[in-house]
Amino acid sequence: MSDRRDFLIGAAAAGAALVSPMTSFGASRTGRLTRKGKLVFRFRPYTLEMKHVFTVAEMSRSTTPAMMTEIEFDGLIGYGEASMPPYLGESHKTAQEFLSKVDLSTYDDPFQMERILGDVDAISPGNPAAKASVDIALHDLVGKLLGQPWFRIWGLDAAKAPLTTFTIGIDTAAVVREKMKEVGGFKMLKVKLGKDNDREMIETVRSMSKVPLTADPNQGWQDRQYAIDMAHWLKEQGVLYIEQPMPKERIDDLAWLTANSPLPILGDEGIQRLPDLIKAKEHGTYGGVVIKLMKTTGMREAHTMARLARSFGMKTLIGCMTETSCAVSAASHLTPLIDWADLDGNLLIKNDIFEGMKVVDGRIVLSDQPGIGIKKIA
Amino acid sequence: MSDRRDFLIGAAAAGAALVSPMTSFGASRTGRLTRKGKLVFRFRPYTLEMKHVFTVAEMSRSTTPAMMTEIEFDGLIGYGEASMPPYLGESHKTAQEFLSKVDLSTYDDPFQMERILGDVDAISPGNPAAKASVDIALHDLVGKLLGQPWFRIWGLDAAKAPLTTFTIGIDTAAVVREKMKEVGGFKMLKVKLGKDNDREMIETVRSMSKVPLTADPNQGWQDRQYAIDMAHWLKEQGVLYIEQPMPKERIDDLAWLTANSPLPILGDEGIQRLPDLIKAKEHGTYGGVVIKLMKTTGMREAHTMARLARSFGMKTLIGCMTETSCAVSAASHLTPLIDWADLDGNLLIKNDIFEGMKVVDGRIVLSDQPGIGIKKIA
Repeated sequence: MSDRRDFLIGAAAAGAALVSPMTSFGASRTGRLTRKGKLVFRFRPYTLEMKHVFTVAEMSRSTTPAMMTEIEFDGLIGYGEASMPPYLGESHKTAQEFLSKVDLSTYDDPFQMERILGDVDAISPGNPAAKASVDIALHDLVGKLLGQPWFRIWGLDAAKAPLTTFTIGIDTAAVVREKMKEVGGFKMLKVKLGKDNDREMIETVRSMSKVPLTADPNQGWQDRQYAIDMAHWLKEQGVLYIEQPMPKERIDDLAWLTANSPLPILGDEGIQRLPDLIKAKEHGTYGGVVIKLMKTTGMREAHTMARLARSFGMKTLIGCMTETSCAVSAASHLTPLIDWADLDGNLLIKNDIFEGMKVVDGRIVLSDQPGIGIKKIA
Repeated sequence: MSDRRDFLIGAAAAGAALVSPMTSFGASRTGRLTRKGKLVFRFRPYTLEMKHVFTVAEMSRSTTPAMMTEIEFDGLIGYGEASMPPYLGESHKTAQEFLSKVDLSTYDDPFQMERILGDVDAISPGNPAAKASVDIALHDLVGKLLGQPWFRIWGLDAAKAPLTTFTIGIDTAAVVREKMKEVGGFKMLKVKLGKDNDREMIETVRSMSKVPLTADPNQGWQDRQYAIDMAHWLKEQGVLYIEQPMPKERIDDLAWLTANSPLPILGDEGIQRLPDLIKAKEHGTYGGVVIKLMKTTGMREAHTMARLARSFGMKTLIGCMTETSCAVSAASHLTPLIDWADLDGNLLIKNDIFEGMKVVDGRIVLSDQPGIGIKKIA
């Protein structure tokens, strides 16, 4: 897994400049201004194996295709990841096609993130997860060059990292009770809803835990009267907010729900990138936003979106897909800036290959290592 | 001027921890994670002496009160500045009162910029320039700790720095012709308007230069029909945009003008901070924003505002007051992100005490030195 040769897909320039002899490495502060070399980009497919079959409103699955990336510059390696749940439309095939077009060998300064990531974004209109895998690797690299983790570069206070939720997928009461044995120290639980057993799901979880809950119907509710009735009932059950209750196209119903719900209504499928957030604010569609790196094309746009949502007075949640500790740790650097976190993607898989962000007593503990703060463990 | 003792005003903790013996200075990258010490804050009043008596719509003056600041940590000093044109309501007295309440000795980590600057902002509802003087010094310090200039930390491309305007104040045609001898290599000129000689001002400048012009009536126009007529005429004269044509309270007239003007209408006095920008977008008051560190409370909010305005599809101009090269250089790091720049404040004074950002052939050339990229020269 850590075999360097696994990474040679699409890395035409890999042999050219793995380590530049021109650099002054770990030198004085001004010396670091003059680092030189070329950026070398590598990627390889990976398959995340989930501990449990995972059910959301649309489907069930036991694996998630991922793409692991590296950007090497001047002897340092930045790591990145694309996680691609199939219902979002990306796959090993689409990511490989996209990433094969990413030629970083034309850049000699990783600090030009705006330009590099702008160029990568311009390759296609879609592929947000594949784009995120480049963005994350570049952030990891630049953070390592700066010698600091991103939460510090962004000026944030690690002590403000919030509690994070552990996710309970839709299943029978018996299986849910079994899963509840894993929630351990988590101080908040997220319950997937949107099939025909919403109340049973909540009641089963509630029967075994007193912690605050959050609800995620994943667009599963079709009727706005059902949605508002559920919102009132969920509030009584100690639920804090509802993610994407109705289909993202139903923006008038969602705006009505946002205006009338006793719980904040957060846009997930309905808010992918920055322009979607602005539209949501203008239309009043949602009272909050679920930010995920695999939607936003990575940390850079996610950071801007988090600041924008705050200045709009909208609630902010940072979430994830099933991911290794690479992408989850990348997202964790934003947590001191947001209201809620749902970063358990790495805990849902059994073949993580990194170590980074931790959850201690249900609270996110940021890694203080440079970059996105991860270490390869496999 | 560079006498350290001049800086002891309000620096109760100055003797305590000028240089911490606990630090590993200039050490390895991971070593830099563990820098320790206390932040020491100093400030002193300064008076900027202008080369020419400067006339805007409201008044004339030949000096600008300023406050020079320093934050010292671990043997490094970050420099900051407040420039306080009297019509904005801040003064040596108000800044001294405000800055005396800034106690940075309680912080031991300059990277916690969000918390530190949030605490400083909470001291009072106003004092934006005084707040900016702390923000700029902290950015200078943190950039020095990271060993990089801020445009690189923000991921921006120095090659994208735009042309900058040189400002021609309101005066008689004879005096304007005299001032025009100083415009040298500038490729854009900003003409102050808003008294009774708007057309004469433009015609005089135009008679001596073919470069693109910009217009700044500083709220001086009272009649919206006059404003729209002038907008059409100014476009014919090769003017690119109009800053704050009418009083900031006239938001409906400004929105009408924005909707009908052939030139972009930029909010200056009407957009101070981030919430003003959001309101302007919602109301359609302006098609662009003039960002100035002395309004935004510094670089941190200015950076967010620049990204926000871009995502709103609004035009962005970064401007300044009469300032030393300290505050002007701090602002310059944003220029690769914005449409237009008006950073000539340091060229309008005769007693600059820093060297930093340059203007070469009318274009901004960013300093590549760490922090805000300045050197003390007096």
